[in-house]
Amino acid sequence: MTVAVYLPLADKAQWWVEMLQELMPGWDIAALDDITDPDAVTYAVVWRPRTGDLAKFSNLKAIVSIGAGIDHVLNDEELPQGVPIIRTVGDDLTQRMREYVALHVLRHHRDMPRQLQAQAELDWHAIVVPVAPNRTVGVMGLGNLGAAAAQTLSMLGFNTRGWSKSPKSIEGVETFTGPEQMDAFLDGCEILVNLLPLTEHTTGILNADLFGKLAEGACVINCARGPHLVDGDLLAALESGQIKQATLDVFHQEPLPTDNPFWTTPGITVTPHVASQIDAATGGRIIAANLKTFEETGTCADLADASRGY
Amino acid sequence: MTVAVYLPLADKAQWWVEMLQELMPGWDIAALDDITDPDAVTYAVVWRPRTGDLAKFSNLKAIVSIGAGIDHVLNDEELPQGVPIIRTVGDDLTQRMREYVALHVLRHHRDMPRQLQAQAELDWHAIVVPVAPNRTVGVMGLGNLGAAAAQTLSMLGFNTRGWSKSPKSIEGVETFTGPEQMDAFLDGCEILVNLLPLTEHTTGILNADLFGKLAEGACVINCARGPHLVDGDLLAALESGQIKQATLDVFHQEPLPTDNPFWTTPGITVTPHVASQIDAATGGRIIAANLKTFEETGTCADLADASRGY
Repeated sequence: MTVAVYLPLADKAQWWVEMLQELMPGWDIAALDDITDPDAVTYAVVWRPRTGDLAKFSNLKAIVSIGAGIDHVLNDEELPQGVPIIRTVGDDLTQRMREYVALHVLRHHRDMPRQLQAQAELDWHAIVVPVAPNRTVGVMGLGNLGAAAAQTLSMLGFNTRGWSKSPKSIEGVETFTGPEQMDAFLDGCEILVNLLPLTEHTTGILNADLFGKLAEGACVINCARGPHLVDGDLLAALESGQIKQATLDVFHQEPLPTDNPFWTTPGITVTPHVASQIDAATGGRIIAANLKTFEETGTCADLADASRGY
Repeated sequence: MTVAVYLPLADKAQWWVEMLQELMPGWDIAALDDITDPDAVTYAVVWRPRTGDLAKFSNLKAIVSIGAGIDHVLNDEELPQGVPIIRTVGDDLTQRMREYVALHVLRHHRDMPRQLQAQAELDWHAIVVPVAPNRTVGVMGLGNLGAAAAQTLSMLGFNTRGWSKSPKSIEGVETFTGPEQMDAFLDGCEILVNLLPLTEHTTGILNADLFGKLAEGACVINCARGPHLVDGDLLAALESGQIKQATLDVFHQEPLPTDNPFWTTPGITVTPHVASQIDAATGGRIIAANLKTFEETGTCADLADASRGY
């Protein structure tokens, strides 16, 4: 059983090779670029594989995405079709995302950007905001991460809504389903959190049309994928005041180029794709367990649906 | 039944008089300084009364503190002894404090101050922090507000401790009691939240000795009362690195004078006593209900213990 490992950073890849080898005695783990016999490779563990990387392996049983999303794998135009893709979803990922969403919704709710500005001006300025039960927040995308985030916001006391493609039921959360209920979900929403998977249907979903349907002066938090957002539409909505503040963790290009206006536009908080990093040690354990299960049973819990895109 | 109302700001006082009058038909509500017949006054509703304000009234049945704390009433050196003091504790107060504590613990946990600094420097710098279950946070004071805050932190996933004078049991929170368990409570504590009542025993409790017992580089959040903190000790602890960051909502003097170093010391976040403001409309309803109950029954749920100090 040969497992090929690829991450853009070579030293990081080597680190993963050694960790997985330790966790999977009896398996042969190697860096993708060190593979001498491609036909022996039955599994590939990858983050942002290069076009054609995976096509080299004719006997792949499964591809493992190092992360909850599989968009970075599907981006490979030469991706071998029909090969199962296994996502890496750990408690840590969910926990970290709950923290990030709670932190940034609370930051916008209590208007910390303005509060910090007041401090910079030595201005004892109390900003009066409603209590959370009188604040409507919405989470788009109710998968593992979105559902956990919505539940956390509800527990914090927010009037919480959730929207997803297929019907979901979450305690304490008013759920909306499908395109026909999108407008009702957005109407009156004051803080919007995007945790949708990136698919052809969700690319560019955070656009002027959507912003216009939120409460005036709403805040937007994107902790899913950069291409969900139409950058120019956000800048225009901030300019007009339709959007008051935004927190962005993901971008079309990462690292975010230093000349990108997001860095310096008032009202925008930039975080460097840290909302929910996978702890490598935890991630390694999850991947090893998933691979062993898949090898034994031909399937596993975190199997993605490539046709669906997540 | 005459009720005398006093708040430092005259127009605010007048606003409260009118609101309470509307909520309490049949009662005679007046601004304290407009009282012509002191002997007719049976109740006083006050925030930071001036020395001697309450001594004028020989027939007081009870004093109402506009707020959860009664320290600002006990500060009156001529306070009539033995007159019951009624606190004003509403769901809003508790909800707002839960939000404030969750927000600022998460800010320090995810090191937002440093993250925002990185943005200002156009620096794509991922700050790696442990997941909340590997982060130990402690709440000092487990009254209405402290217990709710500790519960919220536990629900967010933090390894949560609580300390109080008398034994308390809170689900998901490891509780410590009394001076003898204080060191065990502080040992390894990385983020400390102070929600103690201000008494002779707790004045100056946030001092160099306590800071030295926390984990190195700990963060401190004071959302109780200014005199809990020895200001110079915090500045020294920040200087030495024993304390990494602090968020202060309360101060010895409020508004915080513009020449106070807290405004500009790196690592300190200043908020203008907004952690848990009482929403006046809600506060008015609670006070009216408490006064009616007290008038009918001679007691009410939010009765404080002046001898205890809270």
